Amino acid sequence: MRSFIDVPQGSDFPIQNLPYGVIIPNGSSRPRPGTAIGDWVVDLAALEEADLLPTSVFSGDSLNDFMAAGRETWTLVRTTLQKLLSFDDARLRDDMDLRSLSIFPRSAVRMVLPAKIGDYTDFYSSKEHATNVGSLFRDPANALLPNWLHLPVAYHGRASSIVISGTNIRRPNGQTKADNADPVFGPSRLLDFELEVGFFTGKATKLGDPISIENASDHIFGFVLVNDWSARDIQKWEYVPLGPFLGKNFATSISPWIVTLDALEPFRCSGPKQDPSPLPYLSSNQDFAFDIALEVSITSPGSLNADVVCNSNFKHLYWNICQQLAHHTSGGCNINPGDLMASGTISGPEKGSFGSMLEITWRGTTPVTLTDGSERKFINDGDTVAMRGWAEKNGLRIGFGNVSGTILPAR
Amino acid sequence: MRSFIDVPQGSDFPIQNLPYGVIIPNGSSRPRPGTAIGDWVVDLAALEEADLLPTSVFSGDSLNDFMAAGRETWTLVRTTLQKLLSFDDARLRDDMDLRSLSIFPRSAVRMVLPAKIGDYTDFYSSKEHATNVGSLFRDPANALLPNWLHLPVAYHGRASSIVISGTNIRRPNGQTKADNADPVFGPSRLLDFELEVGFFTGKATKLGDPISIENASDHIFGFVLVNDWSARDIQKWEYVPLGPFLGKNFATSISPWIVTLDALEPFRCSGPKQDPSPLPYLSSNQDFAFDIALEVSITSPGSLNADVVCNSNFKHLYWNICQQLAHHTSGGCNINPGDLMASGTISGPEKGSFGSMLEITWRGTTPVTLTDGSERKFINDGDTVAMRGWAEKNGLRIGFGNVSGTILPAR
Repeated sequence: MRSFIDVPQGSDFPIQNLPYGVIIPNGSSRPRPGTAIGDWVVDLAALEEADLLPTSVFSGDSLNDFMAAGRETWTLVRTTLQKLLSFDDARLRDDMDLRSLSIFPRSAVRMVLPAKIGDYTDFYSSKEHATNVGSLFRDPANALLPNWLHLPVAYHGRASSIVISGTNIRRPNGQTKADNADPVFGPSRLLDFELEVGFFTGKATKLGDPISIENASDHIFGFVLVNDWSARDIQKWEYVPLGPFLGKNFATSISPWIVTLDALEPFRCSGPKQDPSPLPYLSSNQDFAFDIALEVSITSPGSLNADVVCNSNFKHLYWNICQQLAHHTSGGCNINPGDLMASGTISGPEKGSFGSMLEITWRGTTPVTLTDGSERKFINDGDTVAMRGWAEKNGLRIGFGNVSGTILPAR
Repeated sequence: MRSFIDVPQGSDFPIQNLPYGVIIPNGSSRPRPGTAIGDWVVDLAALEEADLLPTSVFSGDSLNDFMAAGRETWTLVRTTLQKLLSFDDARLRDDMDLRSLSIFPRSAVRMVLPAKIGDYTDFYSSKEHATNVGSLFRDPANALLPNWLHLPVAYHGRASSIVISGTNIRRPNGQTKADNADPVFGPSRLLDFELEVGFFTGKATKLGDPISIENASDHIFGFVLVNDWSARDIQKWEYVPLGPFLGKNFATSISPWIVTLDALEPFRCSGPKQDPSPLPYLSSNQDFAFDIALEVSITSPGSLNADVVCNSNFKHLYWNICQQLAHHTSGGCNINPGDLMASGTISGPEKGSFGSMLEITWRGTTPVTLTDGSERKFINDGDTVAMRGWAEKNGLRIGFGNVSGTILPAR
């Protein structure tokens, strides 16, 4: 497969990817769905208006209508686009008017949230992360809590504070408490990132109707990178017994391009062995882990170096996306197109693969030294945290681009 | 104040109330905003189209646009409606065409959710409830956790599964675990209600901008009754360390009419004394408790008796609504019009005022006997749970109507 649009070597966005996002071309104020190829983006509303797509789902300012349409439509649009963008198809290639109307340099568009996110759920599905956190905060000998190996633990997050990559993040104020001191209110001193991958759901269900694990992938539209910013000191004081709240809801950043399940199909692999065997509603013979390399970097204010502090992989996730969705809906909870479900911090087995500063610096006891000589226990004001993700095999690279955010000082 | 529409003695909806909801008159399929007066409802879209309201916020299928407009508009619409519906105003009273177009018997309309709910937050603000739960599940001598008296503990709930009063509720399946046994998957055996009052927010804020406690009431549109259905056995096994998830997200029922802060103004009162004094961001001299009587009944399948199992009062709430909203946004979390924030179970000091079966039957050890002779430890299939709420003083009654739901057997 080759496109008439040039795709540079090593690009995250070959014609085999075609991720979906919502773009605002410079000079316009109207957000509309688009796809990325090489260093270009293609306006899907314009292609639909030109009757080149077999749908009527791209006229709005989000991907929700497209997500709602279901897998058959998703596959049809993908194959239609691959044909339309291919070197051998003249319809778009030779229509200079339509090309100028519908194809823009990626640098000449602004990205906004790809979906109106109704509900946001955050899982806790990395065994290494849960073990690290359990060791740090509770008891290393009994780091995993009793339920962890039996179900994909999760909590409801805040949808309103999800922002697109590039949005500055204000350090939160909050209530914290040191041992043997009264609680105080002020800027969080333990601001952290969490390296996660999230999936958007498509195809709504009705309240009361569970999704079986066999059907789960039909409701999964695609993936983004997620930085679930966390204020560890606020979280520590507030979270018993009802879970994280203000320690998380000040911001969650996501990457702008949704990489589809179809594009990632070549990178499906088996996940960690599950022992004990999950209950039948969480059991399936299908592999639903994905071999996706993940990387986190910190750039000091004023520095030109993005210091990589983590190399992890999505395949480490213990509970897979189909198990997550089957569990989430097993009691009848309904889903809507545009719900976001994130993995929880994805830590690998070694220190270099831990997905949060809490783990990387082991709660601040082993700081990281950046190339400008400064030390980090957690994230400082002015730091930029960026996460990248890509799958690569046999010359095929399916990338996510990145999700980044810079910390502003607390109010 | 007296209306040309007759209001029966003891009605929840005198002209001093004018709650807002979304109605679908029989024979129509278009939801539109309305208000209730006596046994009638008034179509606000029709009044706005007739140029009798100073707004353009009622043409949609939810109250979100009206909520977004802010307190000045809310007060203006309320006073305009009170004038328009008064006995002395001829505009609507004598316009028989407009009356037939815009006024319907309450029994001839179906109610739907009053708002598109973006995010749902559930607080845990009754000291009596938190103490009861702490005694039951942890240590009676240290029932309140250390953070409870310092901040209004809360968690994010699931917005998609909020349903309007009258919707049947499917008993959830889920994973539970008995002591010394392996986890199993099946119907919840400890299905419970939680008596709560929730408020809808209006007037959006930007991410990063906290709402001070002094300004909080400007962002509070009005109140509904909330039944936060809970599966205690699912909740118990899943909730450590990230809080309630499937134990709650199978359904939350709300009453259809939003009673405004303006209507409840005569019933503001001081809440429980707070000791220790809250930190400055949670401190205010203003009273923001409300004297609202609350009642829960259970009707056995086939029975004609609604057995009252709880009489409580919203004034028992330890953390008030302004403290809740100031805390929620103190780290910069933004709110949108139509977010719902519920109080948490409102238990009073005595056994008869406990707001959940967990507390009423003390975890099943002291069952309730209904008038048909049947016993309840928790809620059975076929049971209808109904909650009512009303404020009453000096001949003025501001009521909520009710929220009810009937339990269907698990799939």
